[in-house]
Amino acid sequence: MKPVGPIPAGYEAIGGELAIGGKRASALVAEAGRTPLFVYSRAHLDARVAQLRTALPKRVGINYAVKANPHLGVIGHMAPLVDGFDIASSGELGLCVAVGIDPARISFAGPGKRDDELEAAIATGVTLNCESAGEAARALAIGQRIGKAPRIAIRVNPSFELKGSGMKMGGGAKPFGVDADKVPDLARHVIAEGSEWRGLHIFTGSQALSADAIIEAQANVLELAANITEDIGHGCPKLNMGGGFGIPYFPGDAPVDLARVGAALGKRVANLPQALADSELCVELGRYLVGEAGVYLTRVIDRKESHGTIYLVTDGGLHHQLAASGNFGTVVRRNYPSAIASHYGAEPTEEVNIVGCLCTPLDRLADAAAMPRAEVGDLVAVFCAGAYGASASPSAFLGHGPAAEILV
Amino acid sequence: MKPVGPIPAGYEAIGGELAIGGKRASALVAEAGRTPLFVYSRAHLDARVAQLRTALPKRVGINYAVKANPHLGVIGHMAPLVDGFDIASSGELGLCVAVGIDPARISFAGPGKRDDELEAAIATGVTLNCESAGEAARALAIGQRIGKAPRIAIRVNPSFELKGSGMKMGGGAKPFGVDADKVPDLARHVIAEGSEWRGLHIFTGSQALSADAIIEAQANVLELAANITEDIGHGCPKLNMGGGFGIPYFPGDAPVDLARVGAALGKRVANLPQALADSELCVELGRYLVGEAGVYLTRVIDRKESHGTIYLVTDGGLHHQLAASGNFGTVVRRNYPSAIASHYGAEPTEEVNIVGCLCTPLDRLADAAAMPRAEVGDLVAVFCAGAYGASASPSAFLGHGPAAEILV
Repeated sequence: MKPVGPIPAGYEAIGGELAIGGKRASALVAEAGRTPLFVYSRAHLDARVAQLRTALPKRVGINYAVKANPHLGVIGHMAPLVDGFDIASSGELGLCVAVGIDPARISFAGPGKRDDELEAAIATGVTLNCESAGEAARALAIGQRIGKAPRIAIRVNPSFELKGSGMKMGGGAKPFGVDADKVPDLARHVIAEGSEWRGLHIFTGSQALSADAIIEAQANVLELAANITEDIGHGCPKLNMGGGFGIPYFPGDAPVDLARVGAALGKRVANLPQALADSELCVELGRYLVGEAGVYLTRVIDRKESHGTIYLVTDGGLHHQLAASGNFGTVVRRNYPSAIASHYGAEPTEEVNIVGCLCTPLDRLADAAAMPRAEVGDLVAVFCAGAYGASASPSAFLGHGPAAEILV
Repeated sequence: MKPVGPIPAGYEAIGGELAIGGKRASALVAEAGRTPLFVYSRAHLDARVAQLRTALPKRVGINYAVKANPHLGVIGHMAPLVDGFDIASSGELGLCVAVGIDPARISFAGPGKRDDELEAAIATGVTLNCESAGEAARALAIGQRIGKAPRIAIRVNPSFELKGSGMKMGGGAKPFGVDADKVPDLARHVIAEGSEWRGLHIFTGSQALSADAIIEAQANVLELAANITEDIGHGCPKLNMGGGFGIPYFPGDAPVDLARVGAALGKRVANLPQALADSELCVELGRYLVGEAGVYLTRVIDRKESHGTIYLVTDGGLHHQLAASGNFGTVVRRNYPSAIASHYGAEPTEEVNIVGCLCTPLDRLADAAAMPRAEVGDLVAVFCAGAYGASASPSAFLGHGPAAEILV
């Protein structure tokens, strides 16, 4: 028997079924017209932003990293809730513009921005988080050509990392950003060339659950930003401190102690180094804002036994849930939080393997999990499906196509 | 320095550039209109089928597993070359029908076939490789309802596996097929219920490079199929022996010794057990047919240095090349065969990391590889991109969209 991860707070049973936003899973599927289905919960999005507003110092804004979930409904719902948006492509810029977000609230990071993407960003007034001297030169040239000063921040490759993070984005050689010691010269250059100087972006890692690690990384970010800003000698209009706040996916994971992170950051912000005294500050969060707000619902197509092992074969799979299948940056596969949505809260009565419909042994949703008995037609829920789910999975694989997505 | 995998035969340099099908990489990109670009080579597809026809006994047909590369041009090119097509969804059925393939040449495997998929297959005369008693019952009921006898084969879950295969599809409890000891009863049942009996499908694994392992698995498959067929007592109209022939991806990998596999199979086929004397035989190959025929071309957007490490940042990445990035069923990432297409065949002069444009440390195409010097604008080639590339990658991730694909 292998445990499943912890189910996020805020999900309930109605009439023995999983309910999201007050609606039963079966009703949500009927509304969407089909399975597999991603359901995103407005109440969860609201609650998470409210928790952050309570915990973080007022001065620290919240940016939403669109890459975590680019569903138009989700972006639109976040628009009035957060302060800024971080995008990673002109495709994501298009989505933000489509829901009416002011490009002045948007910043654009990514190590491989094409010229057409730089031009779209400069033309609309998006801030570029420049990742290299070469990119800065291209941005300045494009700005010259179209007669618009680019808004430029520099993404710093810090010499430290976010400890315990699922993905380290700092500490040593990296394709991201400009090595810290080379930032001041580049900043003075882009300022001298007439760009609108927007400050610094320092992203140290993602998916950390340790408050201590996040507190330490934030302290390091503030210190580094202050030192670089002093060296540049032009102030730092805005400092994007990065994110890194993780969510619990696996057995034994505990949520970030947000109150402690907020309290520590509050003390730092109350005693900012002089160089950052006038800076606008923000954190950039993706997964932490939307991950727990999403549930993936898939229907049991077959229930079969092989050599004594029970398999529930569903109509979903890794083509929508690559990370949950254990095939995205994972070395050892563990079970995401999951449940039989049609019998939510019922006592487990058997050990089952829940698999997807793809013809590959990689397509697993839950291994050797204790579940109440499910029959063909029942719904399975995989939680923590709000981030890096639908858009981060190979939806064309084997020709089943994308899942449906609704916001409730 | 980390080596890259072996570049497949049949690629040449013209004017110092990689050429595919006699056309330079830059010309192919101009023809397609953009990078990133998958180029599929007709000459490679033809050559591979010809090698198989030479090596395998005449009696053994070749099926193409569409899942490996569902590009319409590729399927259409394979249509006159191979004997049958294996599909994994009604989506793939639609592609085959679109290029004019007779559904009588198609068989449909997959552990999670939805009712609407079963109906589409039965209505068009596709053979179902039934994966469970439950699926067989659904197929029979649908056949009754629409007044058409389903063409049914049974997929067997064998008790042995293909040794050394990248993905094991047999040996112990599996979601695929029907445990071997339960097949005869189920077969007699579907025959008694009026289905058209089509025989057996036994798939033991994929991506094996050892001829010995393939020879052993094929011997086991023939023995098992004969035993099951005797037990059933109705003959075996067709036996799909599965595939498993691998291609070299990584340093040290050597191609399958196809002549030896073919010779061993020839001996077996010349002395078939009585139960299979009248059976049509085939192997089912995907990756082996198309993998080496594909090249992924992506353009260098930035050349940067971080703490002494050189990064070539390209406009491609794991959103098109998930497996090459090391994030699809891989524990330890190794370098796929890759090259600077703009300086093909030139001596390496430096060690570089080739990365994609995505804002994640997972997005790697070649680590610490020895390459001739490449500048912004140069093209990078990743080989072995013909199978499980475009369709098996999360093309929506970060909003850059799918790559272009052409057949030359």
